[in-house]
Amino acid sequence: MITTIEGGITAPAGFRAAGVHCGIKANPEKLDLALVVSDTPATAAAVFTTNLAVAPPIVVSREHLQASRGQARAVVINSGCANACTGDQGRQVAHLMAAETARAVDCDLEEVLVMSTGVIGVQLDPRTVTQGVIDAADTLAADGHMRAALAIMTTDPFPKERAVEVASPRGTFRVGGICKGSGMIEPRMATMLGVLTCDAAVPAPLLQRALSEVTEHTFNAITVDGECSTNDCVALLANGASGVSLGQADLPLLEDALYEVCRFLATEIVRGGEGATKLVTVHVTGARSYEDAKQAARAIANSLLVKTAIHGGDPNWGRLVAVAGRAGVAFQLSSAAVRIGDVVLFEAGRPYDERAPLAADYLQGKDIAVAVDLGTGGSDEATMWTCDLSKEYVQINAEYRT
Amino acid sequence: MITTIEGGITAPAGFRAAGVHCGIKANPEKLDLALVVSDTPATAAAVFTTNLAVAPPIVVSREHLQASRGQARAVVINSGCANACTGDQGRQVAHLMAAETARAVDCDLEEVLVMSTGVIGVQLDPRTVTQGVIDAADTLAADGHMRAALAIMTTDPFPKERAVEVASPRGTFRVGGICKGSGMIEPRMATMLGVLTCDAAVPAPLLQRALSEVTEHTFNAITVDGECSTNDCVALLANGASGVSLGQADLPLLEDALYEVCRFLATEIVRGGEGATKLVTVHVTGARSYEDAKQAARAIANSLLVKTAIHGGDPNWGRLVAVAGRAGVAFQLSSAAVRIGDVVLFEAGRPYDERAPLAADYLQGKDIAVAVDLGTGGSDEATMWTCDLSKEYVQINAEYRT
Repeated sequence: MITTIEGGITAPAGFRAAGVHCGIKANPEKLDLALVVSDTPATAAAVFTTNLAVAPPIVVSREHLQASRGQARAVVINSGCANACTGDQGRQVAHLMAAETARAVDCDLEEVLVMSTGVIGVQLDPRTVTQGVIDAADTLAADGHMRAALAIMTTDPFPKERAVEVASPRGTFRVGGICKGSGMIEPRMATMLGVLTCDAAVPAPLLQRALSEVTEHTFNAITVDGECSTNDCVALLANGASGVSLGQADLPLLEDALYEVCRFLATEIVRGGEGATKLVTVHVTGARSYEDAKQAARAIANSLLVKTAIHGGDPNWGRLVAVAGRAGVAFQLSSAAVRIGDVVLFEAGRPYDERAPLAADYLQGKDIAVAVDLGTGGSDEATMWTCDLSKEYVQINAEYRT
Repeated sequence: MITTIEGGITAPAGFRAAGVHCGIKANPEKLDLALVVSDTPATAAAVFTTNLAVAPPIVVSREHLQASRGQARAVVINSGCANACTGDQGRQVAHLMAAETARAVDCDLEEVLVMSTGVIGVQLDPRTVTQGVIDAADTLAADGHMRAALAIMTTDPFPKERAVEVASPRGTFRVGGICKGSGMIEPRMATMLGVLTCDAAVPAPLLQRALSEVTEHTFNAITVDGECSTNDCVALLANGASGVSLGQADLPLLEDALYEVCRFLATEIVRGGEGATKLVTVHVTGARSYEDAKQAARAIANSLLVKTAIHGGDPNWGRLVAVAGRAGVAFQLSSAAVRIGDVVLFEAGRPYDERAPLAADYLQGKDIAVAVDLGTGGSDEATMWTCDLSKEYVQINAEYRT
């Protein structure tokens, strides 16, 4: 049985967290450096951005995870500066962040993962982050979850955390997590920063398998603006502090627990997307393959015309058909169908535009579901989550640096 | 020598055009049906949408062009209703439009091309369009170019037309054109409606070759919002009324003339894009192939973060690197470069963010050029045109039908 509990990323036993202001952000009230530490050795897994303009912290984290063969003790994260496109100097600072963390929490260098988020192309000041790591290590606490969640935010309107307790025949264990999102959110990778903790003991390869599978259906099934960042990363640490050990046979159990946490966090990212006023669930059915279904759902979820129509409460179902038709997947217009909420507006190639007012009423809500059947007769399906596109998105992103 | 002249689509000899209000649009001052006719038989070529949710008028036009083996006399176009996703009834109305036009201008059914643009999923009233065709045929005029250009507009802020005269060793001939764009503009097809006329005689296969080639670098090199419509179509008629005949050896000459007209019309579509305040030329170099260059240029041109940054005058060059890195093409960060106007902000993997104020000044202009070198050492390149993304785009598309 899986129960939602308080405590976010420090709900699992043996994890401490901290969030401090070290000066990367100008506003002294904004936290800008987070630290998550396992008191004992932990296995680790991670999913990284597929962007080829990959940022130095991601390069460092990937190297460390490989060198440690899936072991980690700490994750250090700064916000306010992505340390991306920063060349050799950026690599040195990312290494420094890891080294200072290893020294402060007394672990091997390779047991530290580094993440950064914020503006691209600006150098991170080495003295500022060094002081931040020292301050964070000094304030690590078993109830530090919310400060860590706050310290990784950029334009996020609210912090995002979640924790669950799993009662199983193997015993009781917990999974917790924090994440940040807001802009540059695209589904082809984790599309954001996320840190997950688990107090079961899980072999590293199994942990990686579970994280990759769950990410595909949660963090990789959301989009705000179709942008894949240079810094995207989700990491998961499992330290065994609960006394529970999970093996191959427990993979479904672990995935269920992770799914519960990650789906909540992923949809929270969409709800908190830049300028978002509605959470939109896009469900595509009647596809020839899961890949086709996901590709069509992604195209719909990224369509400016769909997102603006939903923002305006306009049941412009024709735009859904048009996007499905250009999505690059098998599509049969004469058998296709479109539903907004429970209202069928197009079926078997025939429009029912007279039902548009019903759909318009439904679109006044905050939680919107749209469904498209690709009409191929196939039985594969996929779900994506997105938000509407508002003038506020434009405002936020036209003035991000100024 | 190619000279720009007045007269738009009726500048070439032997073409007449008309634009009328027949009642598809509620506002009686808005023209909503256009007719372009060659007085004598003409060869014809066309490029159609790649969207699988293809609209009935496109189906009819494609069939007619095939049945006539590249002959056409008339193009009939309505605005205000796309006649898309309209099933059997929609097909009947598209056929009716062609049949009424053939009767009114006294040509074969297969010599008529049909286009529609406007809201998807709404039926086109057969009596309304029949009356429109009759009225348009009655008012066909050798100076009807502007009325035709006006009658194909939807949310376009201004009509778009262009004509050139070509003085060549073969003699003097003309090319003219009109188009409409505004929203649902995506580069993978013509992305809009366009009609082109030419008073040289050109064999149909050669005409098609020239149109396809020129479209790739003009109408297929623009984007407003990354949306490929169900109704996109560009058609070109050549009637030989100038007395000039063009053959295989004259292909470059014909392409030059078409390029002159189409590039102007294509960039006019971008300038008149929904909510657009700036024309942005995206130039990608250092690619391993033309396809890679175009794909990267398209990704940048469609990036919400790039388009909003340019709208806000924010020289956020890091977003250009991030998009290039996720574009799915070969990319080498350590050799990549970014230029905004003449200001190099990133080169050989090193940022020059201190030059950002210079780029910010440049971004105050209306005609913006950005360039990205993919850093692969390859010598291929491509250009795309796009516009900035403003709050007005959101406003227009959140309220299109209401």
